[in-house]
Amino acid sequence: MVPIRKTLKEIASLIDGELIGNGDVEITNVNGIREARKGEITFLANPLYGSLLNTTGASAVVTSKDIAEAPKPIIRTENPSVAFSKVISIFQPDREDAVLPKSIHKSAILAKNVTLGKNIGIGPHVVLEDSSVIGDHTVISANAYIGPNTKIGKGCRIYPNVTIRENSIVGDNVVIHSGTVIGSDGFGYINVDGVHQKIPQTGTVAIEDDVEIGSNVSIDRARFGQTRIGKGTKIDNLVQIAHNVKIGPHSIIVSQTGISGSAELGKNVILAGQVGVVGHVVIGDNTIVGAQSGVSKSIPAGSIVLGSPVKPIQDEKRLYVYIRKLPELFKAVKELKDKLLKKD
Amino acid sequence: MVPIRKTLKEIASLIDGELIGNGDVEITNVNGIREARKGEITFLANPLYGSLLNTTGASAVVTSKDIAEAPKPIIRTENPSVAFSKVISIFQPDREDAVLPKSIHKSAILAKNVTLGKNIGIGPHVVLEDSSVIGDHTVISANAYIGPNTKIGKGCRIYPNVTIRENSIVGDNVVIHSGTVIGSDGFGYINVDGVHQKIPQTGTVAIEDDVEIGSNVSIDRARFGQTRIGKGTKIDNLVQIAHNVKIGPHSIIVSQTGISGSAELGKNVILAGQVGVVGHVVIGDNTIVGAQSGVSKSIPAGSIVLGSPVKPIQDEKRLYVYIRKLPELFKAVKELKDKLLKKD
Amino acid sequence: MVPIRKTLKEIASLIDGELIGNGDVEITNVNGIREARKGEITFLANPLYGSLLNTTGASAVVTSKDIAEAPKPIIRTENPSVAFSKVISIFQPDREDAVLPKSIHKSAILAKNVTLGKNIGIGPHVVLEDSSVIGDHTVISANAYIGPNTKIGKGCRIYPNVTIRENSIVGDNVVIHSGTVIGSDGFGYINVDGVHQKIPQTGTVAIEDDVEIGSNVSIDRARFGQTRIGKGTKIDNLVQIAHNVKIGPHSIIVSQTGISGSAELGKNVILAGQVGVVGHVVIGDNTIVGAQSGVSKSIPAGSIVLGSPVKPIQDEKRLYVYIRKLPELFKAVKELKDKLLKKD
Repeated sequence: MVPIRKTLKEIASLIDGELIGNGDVEITNVNGIREARKGEITFLANPLYGSLLNTTGASAVVTSKDIAEAPKPIIRTENPSVAFSKVISIFQPDREDAVLPKSIHKSAILAKNVTLGKNIGIGPHVVLEDSSVIGDHTVISANAYIGPNTKIGKGCRIYPNVTIRENSIVGDNVVIHSGTVIGSDGFGYINVDGVHQKIPQTGTVAIEDDVEIGSNVSIDRARFGQTRIGKGTKIDNLVQIAHNVKIGPHSIIVSQTGISGSAELGKNVILAGQVGVVGHVVIGDNTIVGAQSGVSKSIPAGSIVLGSPVKPIQDEKRLYVYIRKLPELFKAVKELKDKLLKKD
Repeated sequence: MVPIRKTLKEIASLIDGELIGNGDVEITNVNGIREARKGEITFLANPLYGSLLNTTGASAVVTSKDIAEAPKPIIRTENPSVAFSKVISIFQPDREDAVLPKSIHKSAILAKNVTLGKNIGIGPHVVLEDSSVIGDHTVISANAYIGPNTKIGKGCRIYPNVTIRENSIVGDNVVIHSGTVIGSDGFGYINVDGVHQKIPQTGTVAIEDDVEIGSNVSIDRARFGQTRIGKGTKIDNLVQIAHNVKIGPHSIIVSQTGISGSAELGKNVILAGQVGVVGHVVIGDNTIVGAQSGVSKSIPAGSIVLGSPVKPIQDEKRLYVYIRKLPELFKAVKELKDKLLKKD
Repeated sequence: MVPIRKTLKEIASLIDGELIGNGDVEITNVNGIREARKGEITFLANPLYGSLLNTTGASAVVTSKDIAEAPKPIIRTENPSVAFSKVISIFQPDREDAVLPKSIHKSAILAKNVTLGKNIGIGPHVVLEDSSVIGDHTVISANAYIGPNTKIGKGCRIYPNVTIRENSIVGDNVVIHSGTVIGSDGFGYINVDGVHQKIPQTGTVAIEDDVEIGSNVSIDRARFGQTRIGKGTKIDNLVQIAHNVKIGPHSIIVSQTGISGSAELGKNVILAGQVGVVGHVVIGDNTIVGAQSGVSKSIPAGSIVLGSPVKPIQDEKRLYVYIRKLPELFKAVKELKDKLLKKD
């Protein structure tokens, strides 16, 4: 794909902002103010964080009218968040036109009673089972499988080789990447006389609007009721979500994290990479769990935690420092002992 | 799927048990006595654990004749294990009827010399390669791939988008969930002059009867001989099983665990989530390894271990407590030092 | 697959080496000198490591002319590395003949402008999208998906149910195992007013020559530019490689490791199993990172590190020892305290 390039002058004009600085600077993408690098544009909504204008690696920043100047080009706007959303859409490639199916491929298999919306694309070898429903403007790519009685909303993109099992519910504008499995059976057995007998997994999975799910993710159906992913939550690759898990809206689940059965996450929770969460715990709103952590108990809202088992991040980091000083401590205790012995 | 609902009266009658308590209580699923919640029925085989009758969240319990009464409804039976197996089957949805293929779809590709049992279902776009064998009552769902000379037993369910490579052997009543790969090459190279040259992986994978394997699992074929999963073992999602691993019968491998080459697990072993096991170790029968642990040495039978590297669980938990007290210890040692200095 | 069996006499003759020892010993595979077991042949290129001849479990060793004798059969050669590469090829099964497609299956879908090399195999239900290019002698197995404008080199093996998204570049002699996804979108969002808005991921993935990638691996496309896997690097199952990661040549990435966005690995790096690497760090050439480690800072070339966060391996192992002795230390400090109190 040829990257989209726009000058600052063009961007300022498209979002109706006031450019302060060199309008010929070329921009090729957007990014967060802490992550942005040369060639990228970012935004600053809250003037309290104005010092980030000095440290960001971005080539330009969309700001509010409260900012008068900065060490790099800025585009002043009435509402930087709204303006920046427009900037993002400028750089969003029109991928649907380029690489996604635009019609129903003749090799796709549509079973009985399938309901298709307007303007959908169904790729080669897709299977839509009995009574499945596909919403308007949704695209199902090659070799994907949509199970019986599963409902997919409007404007979704289901990439190749995705599996969505029976009775699942997928909202609008959901993106699901390749290799991901929605609705496999939850992992539940009862040991009867030394033999693991399967507990029926009769529930479903519900994915709310605006969720994006990476590749090779596993989301199990509920034992009863629903496994539920909240609106706007984003899930990275190779994540495990067990039966009856509930994830609140606008959360971020980074790659290779595993969430055990019936755990509940609030809204705007961030689980960094390779985190493990045991079953039946509750993680409060706005909590951040650091990478490779293990959550074995419920966590109150607004926590920032790290470690396995997790502790408040500053406690855990302090313990790291103490652990590294253990050789000195052992030495100091030995010296004290020797001194006392001599005194005796 | 509409959940199955039965009253206690109906269940007692179906298993020919004696109901003590309110027969109108509605039950929708089964569960273990520690995990069960309202609306679920569980069982108690050993009267020694009778105190669990007071603490279980279940709405009812199947017991032996040794139990006379309990704080909640019980169904007394001659053999609670046998009776409860019947209860489980009551709540097992007849999923085959609803969502699995019941005939051979016209889009499936059957290569030469394929052997098909009686009453099988082959979904759309399934590929059965040369000389593959599918047993009676087995279902292979959409887009699954069965390699050349692979044998699948009777009563198996292979879900959509599963890959089972050449020469694999799958027993009876095996369930394999979507996205799982059986028989990919083991990860083996020899460094010759700075270049990693592939060690031929000429072995196979054998999955014994009654095994269930979750979604997006990887089980590699052996370098020689067999990678083997024992009878009745249950494997959760996103698990890695390397070449030449042997897992004994009736074991439980929880999600995102990785088992390195040639490791051997005994029977009834439990590896909790995100465990790592290095190559060539032996884990004895009935061992339990806690979540996120790292097994770097062999473990004797009956162990309960935790940590990375693993230690007996009570040792590891005691160390956690000591580590949390390190700030106090450093302070105490400093005070001792100061005191001694003053004395000098 | 019937394992290949050769006597030492036959092998010596095939590589034109001088056999010292029993020529009737049967060999069925190759392996590294530390890993090899009975029935396997290995090699020793550097006579400095001659003591390994006494400890290896191999049944025979290919050596240089510098070695006169050993406790087991040896085959003396001018250049053991070159000779051993020939031995490896003896034991490499001719898998293409047995189990890979040799022609273009009639159920495969070839979109517009597909370019096909000579002597290729395309399995059942494969999808080759618009303007994709497949090199000579390459095999694409059943149900695999090759996206628009993706180029696959010569002599590659793409196993069943692989997904390679649009605009990816795959070199020569690359092997990609089932369930793996190349080119899914990188995980990047900007939080605008509490909503995670997607950062366009307009880059691609480039896989260099001689790379092998295991099953159920996720390699994301770059936000811009390329995610790149260097020549000869080998990647195990269930590995996560985020957007804009660069991995140097001849590296080894063991199962369930995750590498975050824009991290860069040098050449000949080894990441053991379940390692996590944060974004934007640089790992120098020839570095080894132990299993379950967490890399949160850049690492200089030639390091051997372990732990989370990583430290030099000998420091980390020393800390393990001290941590295990914490109960004694707490006791010792208490005794010192009591002694001092008594003195007061």
